[in-house]
Amino acid sequence: MKAFAEEFDPQAFHLDEAAAQQSIFKGLAASGWHTAAVTMRLSVLGELQFAGGLIGLGGEIEWPRPTRAGDTLRVESEVVEIIPSRSKPNQGIVRMKITTLNQHDEPVQVFTAKLLVPRRT
Amino acid sequence: MKAFAEEFDPQAFHLDEAAAQQSIFKGLAASGWHTAAVTMRLSVLGELQFAGGLIGLGGEIEWPRPTRAGDTLRVESEVVEIIPSRSKPNQGIVRMKITTLNQHDEPVQVFTAKLLVPRRT
Repeated sequence: MKAFAEEFDPQAFHLDEAAAQQSIFKGLAASGWHTAAVTMRLSVLGELQFAGGLIGLGGEIEWPRPTRAGDTLRVESEVVEIIPSRSKPNQGIVRMKITTLNQHDEPVQVFTAKLLVPRRT
Repeated sequence: MKAFAEEFDPQAFHLDEAAAQQSIFKGLAASGWHTAAVTMRLSVLGELQFAGGLIGLGGEIEWPRPTRAGDTLRVESEVVEIIPSRSKPNQGIVRMKITTLNQHDEPVQVFTAKLLVPRRT
């Protein structure tokens, strides 16, 4: 957590226990981008396999609570919508709700992603 | 780019030039989460300084084109909206449009973020 924060999100509440205690997080918290990156790793290595890979165009991301040191994360993915491309018959977009949960089954991230997928013509 | 992808987004088009040429990216592309993490670093170290730090609740993220090896990125931030909290007189939310541009001034990421900020009572 601290190594990621030093490289990408060098703020005191991600780096220093004492400073984090005084912050709104009331303790050391992982960068939300670290949670996002770990979620991607779990997604890529998990059961959700699309032809062509997991190609994100974007989406809505929320961090309802921080990831903490020692947390164990898991990911649940749900297909929300499948939208065939109007202009490209061999493409479509899948909207997925990708929820990252800690060991208490509390969501630490909810990402409603738009994924670019190939389509059989 | 490859080191980040190996750790967090191990897909062929982020790791291997030849495979990336055959992919929809037509060449090696950075993970979108790497672009997001670098954007956070640039934001934290930049001129946009809020009391209490940059604390993101979430937002909408888009990757209109990939970051490529050798790209130079910069970040432009614009305040879109300031929303005082109804329940907490000492807090508010700032919506910021945070655009990450490459050296050709093309956006590689647009993140419309909700940031938690302290408010003078």
